[in-house]
Amino acid sequence: MRERRIRIDLAYDGSGFAGWQVQPGKRTVQGTLESALSRLAGDRPVPLRGSGRTDAGVHALGQVADCRMGAEIDDARVLNALRRLLPADVRAWNVATVADGFDARRQATSKTYVYRLDTSRVGDPFLRNRALHVREALDRERLDQALAPLLGTHDWSGFTGSGCEIVDRVRTMSEARFEVHGRHDVRFRFTADGFLTHMVRNLVGTLLEIGRGQRRVDSVPRILEAGDRRDAGPTAPARGLYLECVRYSEAAD
Amino acid sequence: MRERRIRIDLAYDGSGFAGWQVQPGKRTVQGTLESALSRLAGDRPVPLRGSGRTDAGVHALGQVADCRMGAEIDDARVLNALRRLLPADVRAWNVATVADGFDARRQATSKTYVYRLDTSRVGDPFLRNRALHVREALDRERLDQALAPLLGTHDWSGFTGSGCEIVDRVRTMSEARFEVHGRHDVRFRFTADGFLTHMVRNLVGTLLEIGRGQRRVDSVPRILEAGDRRDAGPTAPARGLYLECVRYSEAAD
Repeated sequence: MRERRIRIDLAYDGSGFAGWQVQPGKRTVQGTLESALSRLAGDRPVPLRGSGRTDAGVHALGQVADCRMGAEIDDARVLNALRRLLPADVRAWNVATVADGFDARRQATSKTYVYRLDTSRVGDPFLRNRALHVREALDRERLDQALAPLLGTHDWSGFTGSGCEIVDRVRTMSEARFEVHGRHDVRFRFTADGFLTHMVRNLVGTLLEIGRGQRRVDSVPRILEAGDRRDAGPTAPARGLYLECVRYSEAAD
Repeated sequence: MRERRIRIDLAYDGSGFAGWQVQPGKRTVQGTLESALSRLAGDRPVPLRGSGRTDAGVHALGQVADCRMGAEIDDARVLNALRRLLPADVRAWNVATVADGFDARRQATSKTYVYRLDTSRVGDPFLRNRALHVREALDRERLDQALAPLLGTHDWSGFTGSGCEIVDRVRTMSEARFEVHGRHDVRFRFTADGFLTHMVRNLVGTLLEIGRGQRRVDSVPRILEAGDRRDAGPTAPARGLYLECVRYSEAAD
């Protein structure tokens, strides 16, 4: 049977999933998508490759995955079938035929993660699984000072979770910002050519301590230099984190 | 023991509640609040009066309730205790001492309800319990024409659910609008001196048929005139509906 490779762009509310990656007996985004794709493909298995795993509770606005699909089922039909077959908390918003060599993980050139804070006094009930409620005032100037040294190429071992099996922890960060979107809606935004296990959440946990005045502003370059995870702050909860988008070079796309 | 009356302003995500009103064995907003207030008041019962009931799944940004509270527990302490004692999907955002005669239901002079639609092609996973996903194009001009005759004083029997026990169904609508907030975020907004059972949801169900071209624009005045619920459209789902605010005269407040 003739097949082609397709790219799927999707968004999900991570609060009802045990993360991206398939795990036996758990509801995962990858597992949910693979079930829907398999049904569409006449119950044959359809292995899916994501741009990267997201942890349990982490959300995505623009996750990217790829898989093979029978040539007779065109892109619009795949998109329409996924609309019907997927549950309401994971939605494929684009399906496109790509070069057979496309690889959502290996060919990603950069990703952007956003970490959302709810700074309202009592907490917004509509954001309870979608932002971290932070009651203490955050000092914007201190945060801006702490974010600047993150830009550039570093070994990120100091901000990498202990479970990470990747040896080469050098990545280049091209964007590290604190953004005020609304009266109680503030966000951290990070863009890099790659991220390591819990890297954004460890950065946010450390930055929150700095923003509250509980940690020195200059501790960020020290953590980067020492490369010891124990120097950094706690891992911020998953619920504030969003994979916003994944970028590919023109050639890959 | 000396007591005073307090007004509580609150917001809730209705998706996890069987509505406002206490029902045995069900998780309701009123029941959840009364439990928290009772704990604060040394386990004495604290009967709560809401401005009105909201159905299962209906949300609130500015619901108002009142109750009696021991004079020794000041407003700030009540607010702080509710912040700790309430679950994250219902949040009291203001507590104020009011005149002893204050009655959140009887003294309300007007309310605003908003009904939110998600008009994105595949549906936003973050709005699945918070908006009605409407894929068909809505004709704004037809909606504006249909909304105009709702303004003013009418008998709303034609848009009232069969379960409504209120006999006098004359209410005055001062705002009835279709608003475009974003590319896929459109809303109906209704302000009146009172609303009847399912009134907003029946209005929205009827207006959606008009916006899609499935129903005549001039059917709205006919339904108002005939007063027969069977002439109107279906009841729109609860998940798109928000009680935005409740207003009181200066004297009551």
